[in-house]
Amino acid sequence: MNEKRDIYLDNSATTRCFPEVADLMTGLFLEDYGNPSAMHHRGVTAERRIAGARKILAGILKVKEKNICFTSCGTESDNLAIIGGAMAMQRKGRHLITTVIEHPAVLEAMKYLEVQGFEITRLGVDRDGLVSPEEVAAAVRPDTILVSVMHTNNIIGAVEPVEEIGKAVKAANPDTLFHVDAVQGFGKAQIFPRRMNIDLLSVSGHKIHGPKGTGFLYIADGVRLVPLMHGGGQQGGLRSGTENVPGIAGMALAAQMLYKNIDADREKLFAMKNRLIERLGAVPDIVFNGRTDETAAPHILSVRVRGVRAEVLLHALEDKGVFVSAGSACSSNHPRPSETLKAIGVPSAEIENSVRISLSVMNTMEDVDAAADAVIEVVPFLRKFGVFCSLGG
Amino acid sequence: MNEKRDIYLDNSATTRCFPEVADLMTGLFLEDYGNPSAMHHRGVTAERRIAGARKILAGILKVKEKNICFTSCGTESDNLAIIGGAMAMQRKGRHLITTVIEHPAVLEAMKYLEVQGFEITRLGVDRDGLVSPEEVAAAVRPDTILVSVMHTNNIIGAVEPVEEIGKAVKAANPDTLFHVDAVQGFGKAQIFPRRMNIDLLSVSGHKIHGPKGTGFLYIADGVRLVPLMHGGGQQGGLRSGTENVPGIAGMALAAQMLYKNIDADREKLFAMKNRLIERLGAVPDIVFNGRTDETAAPHILSVRVRGVRAEVLLHALEDKGVFVSAGSACSSNHPRPSETLKAIGVPSAEIENSVRISLSVMNTMEDVDAAADAVIEVVPFLRKFGVFCSLGG
Repeated sequence: MNEKRDIYLDNSATTRCFPEVADLMTGLFLEDYGNPSAMHHRGVTAERRIAGARKILAGILKVKEKNICFTSCGTESDNLAIIGGAMAMQRKGRHLITTVIEHPAVLEAMKYLEVQGFEITRLGVDRDGLVSPEEVAAAVRPDTILVSVMHTNNIIGAVEPVEEIGKAVKAANPDTLFHVDAVQGFGKAQIFPRRMNIDLLSVSGHKIHGPKGTGFLYIADGVRLVPLMHGGGQQGGLRSGTENVPGIAGMALAAQMLYKNIDADREKLFAMKNRLIERLGAVPDIVFNGRTDETAAPHILSVRVRGVRAEVLLHALEDKGVFVSAGSACSSNHPRPSETLKAIGVPSAEIENSVRISLSVMNTMEDVDAAADAVIEVVPFLRKFGVFCSLGG
Repeated sequence: MNEKRDIYLDNSATTRCFPEVADLMTGLFLEDYGNPSAMHHRGVTAERRIAGARKILAGILKVKEKNICFTSCGTESDNLAIIGGAMAMQRKGRHLITTVIEHPAVLEAMKYLEVQGFEITRLGVDRDGLVSPEEVAAAVRPDTILVSVMHTNNIIGAVEPVEEIGKAVKAANPDTLFHVDAVQGFGKAQIFPRRMNIDLLSVSGHKIHGPKGTGFLYIADGVRLVPLMHGGGQQGGLRSGTENVPGIAGMALAAQMLYKNIDADREKLFAMKNRLIERLGAVPDIVFNGRTDETAAPHILSVRVRGVRAEVLLHALEDKGVFVSAGSACSSNHPRPSETLKAIGVPSAEIENSVRISLSVMNTMEDVDAAADAVIEVVPFLRKFGVFCSLGG
């Protein structure tokens, strides 16, 4: 523990668990620890926990409980949707569409399919990071089996027009599956897959104050997937393996807590983000990547600090107890230049100048002000001594 | 919570977390909750947790730290080993060998490969459930890419001669990978993959007083696997997705605690198991499936109670607060007649008479005596009124 309180603004990388979630899980580790496949009451109790979690999540999405398939993370959800979907649909066609700004879990699953002989179309975005529904529609062909577009971009917080895209996809080819990676959007926005023509929706638990090692995939009625894992036949055979009961229950509780106050929380997040925009925007040569109005995500702000390397800024802020992200932290330790920033036209010399500040409902206006103070304090110094800092970074 | 203390003897289905494990995880949910891919110190701290876990597990197996790949469960470990191994090796051959008594995670992964055009040889076992190293050797061909034999059978506790099998496999074809599902053996026995010629070893966290949703796969140097999940490139690209830091650290702590006292614990488990064998063996028409000496697992006893349906006995024992298993509880809710019991020659009329009692270091001799008392009390009653109980079961 640090003596001074950390100001954690890297919530798009991972979040602190809600204490209520940790408490619930502790009970499930130590008391109600049955295997949901067991026939005795400890098994039945465990199964009820899963059913309860399914009910909560289905209620939030306004879908049926049987449409929720629990996974071990957002990456598994994306892979099950894309690879599992492509494998199940390959007799209908071998063409898939995605965008250049997707999370690596989508981009790499697509790359894997490409090696297997599938054809992938990767659409660009506009300067705000937005995908055009018209471009999607124009790319859909009779042999297009799946389209994957994220709900909220993890680097700049662009919120994609998924409802319009869903409509466009289905109008162009009603048999094409529409997958949405909602890892950054779920818990921050209302998402209704049925209204939005979404067939597959990926969610991660640890981005919403639930535990790491959890996630789920919404699978619409009638959609067939080839499982990634085979075994005991849990979850209708779609995802074998003893269910992670504490994780599932914890993730569902976190979602329930977030959606209880979703409107007020969005307002709170936007207020904090707007304060950052106002204060940091006043610093010379600081600009923001993507939109800064309320059509963007309430919790992600991508800040380009000209003349300062992101990694150096990150460590200088860390020194003040403020935690932000360079790159996305969703990839492993060797961050590659952000595809998203390239795609929206950030000059290549400035791509390395961007940090991501990502908020959560656990943050306060005091956190945001302290972070702004820290940026305003360190940036002139770093600009002056940038070369040396870069060498040390 | 029940008022009377439950006597939980279904530890091969799942275990209670060690309280120390739950405590450690709570800290990681609420305090040290960073994303290991983040560049700031919260990320570094999280990565150190993973490195620490890797070190513990590598130390137990006497292998290198980089040989440990974390997964979400035993089923994922088995699927990554078998499907990932077969996909990577398919140019060398398309023949795999396994046994009829494997866990569904192995059997179903093999079935999936069969549908993809691989050829699977399934070996039988003797009346004790043991696989013959000679039969394995005889089945290995130049195009055999992988052999999978479990360490400890989950139904009857047979401990397979994996060291001899490993030797036989490598003598017959040094290029053939040897996979061992050690989900029931790890934590109960010393397993040294390098000495035993094991290339791939599957472990699950929740069978060893760690959390559900965790597992790992040991992967020997030079073994190539095609990943099941693609994305951010975590764990050397073999298993993408933000690592489940609390789960990984919790599983490693549980393993460390178990291996600290492994010899004394094995003695304690055998003493409890032997007491059950002595007391239940004195009941007329109760027999045990598989070996009852100390060449079998210390924690699993398969008890055949002639004239009583396992499900009925299970519920009658549950009424007394004693939890055991019919079938294996590793499959989903619709238990199929045990392949293992069929394979060792249990008459088909008696397969449904077998319950599994599985112990852990958290049990006491008092538990075992209370369980024996309960069996001895209810069995005559159930035999007398068996028909009615069956109807109600």
